[in-house]
Amino acid sequence: MELDLAIVGGTVVTASDTIACDVGILGDKIVTLGRELKAKRVIDASGLLVMPGGIDSHVHIAQPSGPEVTMADDFASATASAAAGGNTMVLPFALQQRGTSLRAAVEEYRREAEGECYVDTAFHLIISDPTPEVLGQELPALIKDGYTSFKIFMTYDDLVLRDREILDVFDVARREGALVMVHAEGYDAIRYMTERLEREGKTSSYYHAVSRPEIVEREATHRAISHAELVDVPVMIVHVSGREAMEQIRWAQTRGLKVYAETCPQYITLTADDLRDLNMDMSGAKYVCSPPPRDAESQEAIWEGLRNGIFQTFSSDHCPFLFNSPAGKLNPKSRTSFRWVPNGIPGVETRLPILFSEGVVKGRISLNRFVELTSTNHAKLYGLYPKKGSIGVGFDADIVLWDPERKETIRQDILHHGSDYTPWEGFEVTGWPVMTLLRGKVVSNAGAIVGEKGRGQILARELSTYARSSQHAS
Amino acid sequence: MELDLAIVGGTVVTASDTIACDVGILGDKIVTLGRELKAKRVIDASGLLVMPGGIDSHVHIAQPSGPEVTMADDFASATASAAAGGNTMVLPFALQQRGTSLRAAVEEYRREAEGECYVDTAFHLIISDPTPEVLGQELPALIKDGYTSFKIFMTYDDLVLRDREILDVFDVARREGALVMVHAEGYDAIRYMTERLEREGKTSSYYHAVSRPEIVEREATHRAISHAELVDVPVMIVHVSGREAMEQIRWAQTRGLKVYAETCPQYITLTADDLRDLNMDMSGAKYVCSPPPRDAESQEAIWEGLRNGIFQTFSSDHCPFLFNSPAGKLNPKSRTSFRWVPNGIPGVETRLPILFSEGVVKGRISLNRFVELTSTNHAKLYGLYPKKGSIGVGFDADIVLWDPERKETIRQDILHHGSDYTPWEGFEVTGWPVMTLLRGKVVSNAGAIVGEKGRGQILARELSTYARSSQHAS
Amino acid sequence: MELDLAIVGGTVVTASDTIACDVGILGDKIVTLGRELKAKRVIDASGLLVMPGGIDSHVHIAQPSGPEVTMADDFASATASAAAGGNTMVLPFALQQRGTSLRAAVEEYRREAEGECYVDTAFHLIISDPTPEVLGQELPALIKDGYTSFKIFMTYDDLVLRDREILDVFDVARREGALVMVHAEGYDAIRYMTERLEREGKTSSYYHAVSRPEIVEREATHRAISHAELVDVPVMIVHVSGREAMEQIRWAQTRGLKVYAETCPQYITLTADDLRDLNMDMSGAKYVCSPPPRDAESQEAIWEGLRNGIFQTFSSDHCPFLFNSPAGKLNPKSRTSFRWVPNGIPGVETRLPILFSEGVVKGRISLNRFVELTSTNHAKLYGLYPKKGSIGVGFDADIVLWDPERKETIRQDILHHGSDYTPWEGFEVTGWPVMTLLRGKVVSNAGAIVGEKGRGQILARELSTYARSSQHAS
Amino acid sequence: MELDLAIVGGTVVTASDTIACDVGILGDKIVTLGRELKAKRVIDASGLLVMPGGIDSHVHIAQPSGPEVTMADDFASATASAAAGGNTMVLPFALQQRGTSLRAAVEEYRREAEGECYVDTAFHLIISDPTPEVLGQELPALIKDGYTSFKIFMTYDDLVLRDREILDVFDVARREGALVMVHAEGYDAIRYMTERLEREGKTSSYYHAVSRPEIVEREATHRAISHAELVDVPVMIVHVSGREAMEQIRWAQTRGLKVYAETCPQYITLTADDLRDLNMDMSGAKYVCSPPPRDAESQEAIWEGLRNGIFQTFSSDHCPFLFNSPAGKLNPKSRTSFRWVPNGIPGVETRLPILFSEGVVKGRISLNRFVELTSTNHAKLYGLYPKKGSIGVGFDADIVLWDPERKETIRQDILHHGSDYTPWEGFEVTGWPVMTLLRGKVVSNAGAIVGEKGRGQILARELSTYARSSQHAS
Repeated sequence: MELDLAIVGGTVVTASDTIACDVGILGDKIVTLGRELKAKRVIDASGLLVMPGGIDSHVHIAQPSGPEVTMADDFASATASAAAGGNTMVLPFALQQRGTSLRAAVEEYRREAEGECYVDTAFHLIISDPTPEVLGQELPALIKDGYTSFKIFMTYDDLVLRDREILDVFDVARREGALVMVHAEGYDAIRYMTERLEREGKTSSYYHAVSRPEIVEREATHRAISHAELVDVPVMIVHVSGREAMEQIRWAQTRGLKVYAETCPQYITLTADDLRDLNMDMSGAKYVCSPPPRDAESQEAIWEGLRNGIFQTFSSDHCPFLFNSPAGKLNPKSRTSFRWVPNGIPGVETRLPILFSEGVVKGRISLNRFVELTSTNHAKLYGLYPKKGSIGVGFDADIVLWDPERKETIRQDILHHGSDYTPWEGFEVTGWPVMTLLRGKVVSNAGAIVGEKGRGQILARELSTYARSSQHAS
Repeated sequence: MELDLAIVGGTVVTASDTIACDVGILGDKIVTLGRELKAKRVIDASGLLVMPGGIDSHVHIAQPSGPEVTMADDFASATASAAAGGNTMVLPFALQQRGTSLRAAVEEYRREAEGECYVDTAFHLIISDPTPEVLGQELPALIKDGYTSFKIFMTYDDLVLRDREILDVFDVARREGALVMVHAEGYDAIRYMTERLEREGKTSSYYHAVSRPEIVEREATHRAISHAELVDVPVMIVHVSGREAMEQIRWAQTRGLKVYAETCPQYITLTADDLRDLNMDMSGAKYVCSPPPRDAESQEAIWEGLRNGIFQTFSSDHCPFLFNSPAGKLNPKSRTSFRWVPNGIPGVETRLPILFSEGVVKGRISLNRFVELTSTNHAKLYGLYPKKGSIGVGFDADIVLWDPERKETIRQDILHHGSDYTPWEGFEVTGWPVMTLLRGKVVSNAGAIVGEKGRGQILARELSTYARSSQHAS
Repeated sequence: MELDLAIVGGTVVTASDTIACDVGILGDKIVTLGRELKAKRVIDASGLLVMPGGIDSHVHIAQPSGPEVTMADDFASATASAAAGGNTMVLPFALQQRGTSLRAAVEEYRREAEGECYVDTAFHLIISDPTPEVLGQELPALIKDGYTSFKIFMTYDDLVLRDREILDVFDVARREGALVMVHAEGYDAIRYMTERLEREGKTSSYYHAVSRPEIVEREATHRAISHAELVDVPVMIVHVSGREAMEQIRWAQTRGLKVYAETCPQYITLTADDLRDLNMDMSGAKYVCSPPPRDAESQEAIWEGLRNGIFQTFSSDHCPFLFNSPAGKLNPKSRTSFRWVPNGIPGVETRLPILFSEGVVKGRISLNRFVELTSTNHAKLYGLYPKKGSIGVGFDADIVLWDPERKETIRQDILHHGSDYTPWEGFEVTGWPVMTLLRGKVVSNAGAIVGEKGRGQILARELSTYARSSQHAS
Repeated sequence: MELDLAIVGGTVVTASDTIACDVGILGDKIVTLGRELKAKRVIDASGLLVMPGGIDSHVHIAQPSGPEVTMADDFASATASAAAGGNTMVLPFALQQRGTSLRAAVEEYRREAEGECYVDTAFHLIISDPTPEVLGQELPALIKDGYTSFKIFMTYDDLVLRDREILDVFDVARREGALVMVHAEGYDAIRYMTERLEREGKTSSYYHAVSRPEIVEREATHRAISHAELVDVPVMIVHVSGREAMEQIRWAQTRGLKVYAETCPQYITLTADDLRDLNMDMSGAKYVCSPPPRDAESQEAIWEGLRNGIFQTFSSDHCPFLFNSPAGKLNPKSRTSFRWVPNGIPGVETRLPILFSEGVVKGRISLNRFVELTSTNHAKLYGLYPKKGSIGVGFDADIVLWDPERKETIRQDILHHGSDYTPWEGFEVTGWPVMTLLRGKVVSNAGAIVGEKGRGQILARELSTYARSSQHAS
């Protein structure tokens, strides 16, 4: 039985091991690990790391964002960008709009994605309208269909769930074994702060950060954890930004609650000061996202959490808008108040290089922890394991070849996303993805997308390995 | 190139992955992972788990224990017992006696072990007399020779180091990159309690537990952590028994200090009540070890720590004595006071079944965490990685085949250690090691030792992967 | 200038001092402290403690409680009961009903109280409908009129404020210097639990306790503290029941936030088991109050907080209903679910004896701490100091003479409240109030009300001494 | 019965109350409080605060400090300085030197003090040599004689007690009801750091601070608390300098342990930077004390502890040396290393003005807390209550009249101590003691000592009010 492909001479990295060996691929799958493998095609990985392709479990693609604002990525551009950044799978959201059916939302998103993706995809749900119909019928059926995780928001006008709704959603998750992701910022507190700032004339982008201080994130985090404890259901706190929320999460994990946490590149590299405009040029709007980046001390706290096991996943929260466009950051209302600046930044392509360079190269985390945080734990938490998330016999041949010594400067002109800017323009990194393979086929090579559009599949997922078992954060 | 051996049809488990595949072995090494492997010899592992052989990084073999007391195991019996229990490596201690050379102690232990071992072995040092000669010459030289970890005691008449000695030992560890293991119980507090209890006539075995309450362990743990923080050196707190010490460790880990921790089977299965005699038969002496087992609530705390990442390793602290012997637990003085009961219990053979049954089978920890706690992290922490500690191409073919469904009752008559009893007599477990392979050769099969005495090697070790890098507890 | 009255031979107790001396009174006021005082009338206090009259800052009198339920006390009976129990002042609530004016509510309550009170009275406000009119006009004006504190509820159908309303109320309090009291239990979580229990047919009184576990109180406490921190305003968490909420409060106090806390007799003497019926006789309903009593361990936690300064005040949360009445605990709906059992228990008369006996006599708190917890801190926190709350020159002559050695059994037939039962029937205490003087005149003597109805005044209050200054919890 | 003296028109302040009234004095005692008092002599206190005289429970007078160093104060100068600073009592130490009798030390100190004191005095013991004779005979007898508190040191060559000695001393304290004060810094860690710094040539005064970082204080604090918990005895941690030790104390207090704590002026006003010399002039030596002052953030932490009840007492740790003298800070060896700079600073005269100005005037603590921290709690903790520590009928007429608005600049030339400098030279304060009365007689007036030398008595003390009862920190 001849191999279709062998990746030879590289160093294979998993969440626990670092091993010099070859990887043998037949069809979509890894079928052998060994030395001196022969195959129809051989890729020389000498000097390179051979890692499971990145899984980005927190990206927003083609979501509606209000009447005049359009997201800058469709599924083609977002998944191309992901592939170029070393990823082989993304998990975007299918957003239910209030008053509409959840199932219909899912169908709509699937239609948009179908035939467009360069990497594999699977949808989380966003539940904005947990009617009895949604909770009693649609959601259980969708979970059975493989939509085994959903996100709820504790803020945003058109998404916020009230505590009772949160409890009811948690209740369904407990019964069905699904995993709930929580955007933990308190709506009312943000509204209170926003109106106070607007009354004081403090409306520039920078005040976006002031309007949602760490207290607001901490309170919502405590509330989400308490509700999850009451219902007895695991919960994932996404995009944690700093120490206050982390303390709540660590406290819960120490007590033995199944509380998982995610953080993102913006919280280890940006600060609230990046939201300050230069000469009223609105440049601060480029960095507006929620929760906002904090400060240098918070960055240190986040690193500590990436090391000591508070965080299980490192995602991008890719949420791309055009900067210089009336349908993006500079829409007509955004100059009147930070309240109208679309929340979100692009990042699916830069997530891995930033963590590798700032984390592995600077000695803050190990290579294995890098793989765990960017791929393996995403697969385990979101029901993709053992199909995805590691390099081993039987796994999908989703692989990134990584040059650990290549120096690169992040610039908009080398990226593939739909945004017209990157928040990391000029950021210098060491380590770069040189080739990405999706199920045994090269999808990105030396910065060029070479894969076939539409080869990316839309996957149904199993229930979370973690949520089902007693596996805790570590 | 034909394989010498293939283990086929089983489920390979590493610290991160669980994969149905075959393992191919050539000579001492694993050389391939795949499906349908052919080889000179094939072992059918259908229905079995194929895991890296257990590494027990905390065992005492043939150590002197006072004038009249003899340890019940020599290297042959201890390593046979280890092999039968699913282990392929043990790390015993070379104990420096006060007034003697550390190097001489090492040579003496090596002589005793040479040609006697059924599994691989490597020595930690025990430093009881940190003279300038020892700290300035012997220790640095021994570290370079591969004795890259050493243990210090904060209690015991003939072993206790005073704070200044501890700081000086830590200082050497920092300079040389070695890892210090700490027995953290406060000598003076134990002496104070012991004398008080003896004055009150409370001398039976049970009062051993009363004489060293959790406060004593907590205080010493805090002290060891503080000294390590002052010197800026990683530290491993061994055989942690309950919540009080755990809180100190968690606090340190949360602050970002490199503090590692180990626990043992006795702290999840035994309690202080086991130390009570029945009808003054001295049976409580069988359970005398330090720190003593605590209570049911402490056991729950330990489980929590095994899940949430406080603990990196699970070891036996195998320290075997005869019960019914004047040279063991029932020596002439031990009836006069618990003070004279030798401290320690046998456990190298029962460690893995107890954790598997109580942990994995009862749903408290995952299979991968089991492997991490019993093998991988031992290898990483003690400089044996990537030679030992996982199943992957290039690793030593140290493998245990495990029947996850086999029910067994632990009994002295099925064990291979030198003790005349086991503290777990009658303990029922699910899951049992059915075959152990050391570097590609079967050493234990179906309860019988079939390996060649002396095939076990005495290894030099690298510096700790953890202590060298920024890798933290997780 | 001859004294009107001298209390001689007793031991005067203040929040800091215990002094054997006489107290000289002229008119309403204490005018001298000394020895061997002469006066028109002399009361021999030999063997007695002479303490500032109790101030009970948390009582409910004549509040509407739904369509069919009536509170068991009017102002005459409640204040008579207070006097008999050693109190010289109570602070009931003027409850705004939704859709009505706060000012109108105040006027209505004043009318009911006018001419009826045996002890002095001052109203807190309850804000259930914080309209712009209420927040912008009525509340600031009422604060200026001496209604300097108000309570908000985070639960109850007709009282619950949403987070934004809480923040807006806090904002007014910050601007005006008023003190906000918070009933911290989460409405939505209680609703969720209640419906779940009802679906399971768990409707007896006992499930009242199950429907609002400590998590629910803890979460609301954290939320209230976070909102107060965001707005930068002091906050008083009332009727704290156990360790979970206490930990949040202690954490806030340690960080330097101005968070005050109150607890009550039920949380040191009753447990959830008291809510269990005997033979379906509904007797558990007698103990239904919110938060519910917890367990023995919680009681120990509360004692710890009474000692170590977590709590500033000890109040009754007197909220009296008839047990054996269709307008009380046994209303037509209450047998169908605990949800319909009126929440509250009587306790204004038994508060001081319970704390004295369980606290002072049993050696858990000092005499001075008793005075501080039952009188002085109430005066300081609620703007009555230095008119009320201590024994010193210039203070109102509000005094209770206390026999520290008198043994008494609490029984309904010796109490003066309007309820037909006491939750402490048969509870034995040591220490009893033998005489109460309001502004120099005896109001209660040897269990008999001898004061004049209507002598009790309705007082305007200053801003809180604590909230105004940097004085923190201690 | 005519009063000897009346202090009229002032505002009397106690630990709980602030009252405008007159104070009537007969002989040594306060006999009445009232209005418009008549007396043989009347002092007009209009505009002044009338407070209990300061009690400084931590001063060193005439202690030997090594072969060539002499303390700068004898009992006459120290108590004159105390009186001028608003104090009516000091508690110095009778220091046992190793190899000598504790009783003999006490007699020697008494002889030196007899007839020399301007204010009342009582001795703590310092136990440096806890022989069986000392623990079994001398100490119990001395406690019965009124030496009811003693200090132990966890550092200093000639004073340090080892853990077993500490436990034995605690054991005596528990049996006899005495209170142990602990200087909590770890000897071995300081030695380790000192030698390391000296090897690196870092020998100037500043490195005194580096040689004893907060870790060292924290570790010793945890150890002292743990030993006290084991023995079950109250303990007072003296001169706490910063957050790390405070966290241990707060943790213990929260768990219900009887752990008391003291801080000093240096920890709210000085920082380690004050120990830096200017142009090698050795001026940093003026600030050398142990523990060393920390930084601005630590000062904030200390303030938080003064507010929230971590600290019960605020003392000076007056330990005066000459700066410009071979027998003082500039002794022959002190230029060779910070190790030889005598540890200690003068402060008995400036303690009250500094706390009043920085605390009360700047709104950080209340007036009542000021009195509690500087007088009342000292009396209660050290067995002087109710003779000392408050203003009330029957108390000694120990009174300071305080002008709350007087601005003063602290300068060596207005102080009365024996040192030739003050660490607070040029420090500006608001609030100043204008008159001090000891047992009814003026001892200091407008900066001049007018009392009679020798009128100060040497008092025997009762057992601690706190240690005997369940009174906890608050």
